[in-house]
Amino acid sequence: MAEKRHIITLLTDYGTKDHFASSLKGAILSVNTNVDIVDITHDIAPQDVFGAALVLRNAYKTFPRFTIHIAIVDPTVGSERRPIIVMTDNYNFIGPDNGIFSYIYHEEEVNRVIRIDAPHYYRMPVSATFHGRDIFAPIAGWITKGVDPRKMGEEITDYVRFAIPQPQVTSGLIRGHVIHIDHFGNCVTNISTNELTNEIAARNKVLLVNNHQIARFCRFYAECPDGEACALFGSAGLLEIAVPKSSAAQLLGIVRGMEVALHYAV
Amino acid sequence: MAEKRHIITLLTDYGTKDHFASSLKGAILSVNTNVDIVDITHDIAPQDVFGAALVLRNAYKTFPRFTIHIAIVDPTVGSERRPIIVMTDNYNFIGPDNGIFSYIYHEEEVNRVIRIDAPHYYRMPVSATFHGRDIFAPIAGWITKGVDPRKMGEEITDYVRFAIPQPQVTSGLIRGHVIHIDHFGNCVTNISTNELTNEIAARNKVLLVNNHQIARFCRFYAECPDGEACALFGSAGLLEIAVPKSSAAQLLGIVRGMEVALHYAV
Amino acid sequence: MAEKRHIITLLTDYGTKDHFASSLKGAILSVNTNVDIVDITHDIAPQDVFGAALVLRNAYKTFPRFTIHIAIVDPTVGSERRPIIVMTDNYNFIGPDNGIFSYIYHEEEVNRVIRIDAPHYYRMPVSATFHGRDIFAPIAGWITKGVDPRKMGEEITDYVRFAIPQPQVTSGLIRGHVIHIDHFGNCVTNISTNELTNEIAARNKVLLVNNHQIARFCRFYAECPDGEACALFGSAGLLEIAVPKSSAAQLLGIVRGMEVALHYAV
Repeated sequence: MAEKRHIITLLTDYGTKDHFASSLKGAILSVNTNVDIVDITHDIAPQDVFGAALVLRNAYKTFPRFTIHIAIVDPTVGSERRPIIVMTDNYNFIGPDNGIFSYIYHEEEVNRVIRIDAPHYYRMPVSATFHGRDIFAPIAGWITKGVDPRKMGEEITDYVRFAIPQPQVTSGLIRGHVIHIDHFGNCVTNISTNELTNEIAARNKVLLVNNHQIARFCRFYAECPDGEACALFGSAGLLEIAVPKSSAAQLLGIVRGMEVALHYAV
Repeated sequence: MAEKRHIITLLTDYGTKDHFASSLKGAILSVNTNVDIVDITHDIAPQDVFGAALVLRNAYKTFPRFTIHIAIVDPTVGSERRPIIVMTDNYNFIGPDNGIFSYIYHEEEVNRVIRIDAPHYYRMPVSATFHGRDIFAPIAGWITKGVDPRKMGEEITDYVRFAIPQPQVTSGLIRGHVIHIDHFGNCVTNISTNELTNEIAARNKVLLVNNHQIARFCRFYAECPDGEACALFGSAGLLEIAVPKSSAAQLLGIVRGMEVALHYAV
Repeated sequence: MAEKRHIITLLTDYGTKDHFASSLKGAILSVNTNVDIVDITHDIAPQDVFGAALVLRNAYKTFPRFTIHIAIVDPTVGSERRPIIVMTDNYNFIGPDNGIFSYIYHEEEVNRVIRIDAPHYYRMPVSATFHGRDIFAPIAGWITKGVDPRKMGEEITDYVRFAIPQPQVTSGLIRGHVIHIDHFGNCVTNISTNELTNEIAARNKVLLVNNHQIARFCRFYAECPDGEACALFGSAGLLEIAVPKSSAAQLLGIVRGMEVALHYAV
């Protein structure tokens, strides 16, 4: 009977024009050819750990159980920052201990975080600038070969996590901010249905961003006239500002980090 | 014996920096891990249904029989536009009913078009903005698991198709236009050997585009001196304007939609 | 028992927005579905044979033995330039005979170079502009099916190779130049540990490039203060100029081809 194939995903800021991304794949396949490797993206902005954490949050749950997710935005590669494996019931996450898994810690039940210390499984010699190829990729490969992550290092509990930016809710007002601009120019905020509940959604409300007032709330893009701005919940479960068939970011001058204020009738 | 692996291709305007493209893959693999997923492209210009239709036309036939082609440029996702499966002898095509399969209707014998209505196979809850992940991808996955597309909805015959832009041929003149600018800046027209026959190709002729006269016709790029313009049939079977080792589009100021006129001796 | 899966990598200047890259995959899979296809990159600059050769050099060794590497930057496709297979103990390399395998000839023991002449295995009709799809991809596919490359054409010995740019070493001075700017803006030189030996590395030294003096030598990026320039050996074993969390190329005005001079105490 055919051995079950394993899935490993890759999320990096490596870009696609160098040898970096494909070297991860070669290093994995050199350990185990019986793996399907799926790119989440290699187009995270250089050194943008938060951006990587957010895309990982939005993508990882679509993959089947036992998928291994490698996420590498690693400006301090080679220093004392630790390589880690984050174990949950459904997935293993592998990457540097620099906060890249902060959303995972926030949204998943974490069983254990392992500080990787298993040179036996590394690709040798280990480059001081490319732990992706020489540590993270082969470690993932060996996990698919059946090696228990708990045998790859000691458990740690002081792993790095940044505070997930949470909206502030007061009477009649939800304050959040723009945490992502997507490929289409849609401006994704950190406001979810936890804050903008069905009950509030039914009231009169207006969203303020960069001195623009958005009073139109839609369920999908085509509900909004072309060229006009609206707010809607996108596929990541977050409120976003969109201009159908155009870029809200460009038209409204919105950049990541800007504040948004949702005023609603009380 | 190993189960045969299935092939699913993806063609979208999602770009590669967000969770969009990889979420399709996760959603497919969550239904069936025994699938090879091949990106045709995710770099169709946002909302460019015609551009997607053309790249699909140029790519789909290289894939083996029984490949499933998912094509999603879907500005009206969430509205009443229908999700469909286009069945031919060789392939199934899955995507929105907005004209994206117009070239398929034009070039293939279509056996049946199914309006997808099979929530049982969707990824739940279905996002109003991301049917790719929640409908198209899992539907493709279930087809590879053996579910008959004809059981996924009713047949329709009023599917959306736009008119394929056809050249006009009169005595001594073929009028067409530029339908694509490729990565190298080659300007692909809608003129094929149906219009520019071997018989006409043997005559004196000149191609006019954007006030440039191109009298050089080649078989391959290197037949033309570097920096000069020529016309030749490209790999999609369409006449294109090229400037070897440079961008014809930039040098000649050509954009998609421009008219071309091929005058030939009668 | 499951048949072993084969690995084929792709390295081209095709970009990702057209049908080009995916057509290679379709053409391979049409010969043999039991293949894993891995993109090294399709983002080589158009017609940049040297750039392709270098990325291939940096990537190929990470892949397991028996991987087939297809590399296509092919401005003279359709002309008399020859399609070839380069056979080494570990890999087969397939592409045009235009120097793209120069680093392979330099770094690997080459057993044989075959001029491909085996129309029986081509995809027909062969386009004069797209040998990737119609010759290179199917040839790779047939090799994975067990066809011996030596049966696909005659051996040649006059294959094209460009001179690998070597640094000049004189007493107290290593002269090299910048051969690559990577995605992060790091400027990769052709100086390796062959020239900058441990013995020299221990001495006082300074690197001159574009009128900048770089006196800081590091092992990894984070050893250098943000915003300052340093030199270090990157993952390809080559000395590179970096500005941590920024682009050395932009900040120092460095482009490919610039000279670097490493002065050291004698």
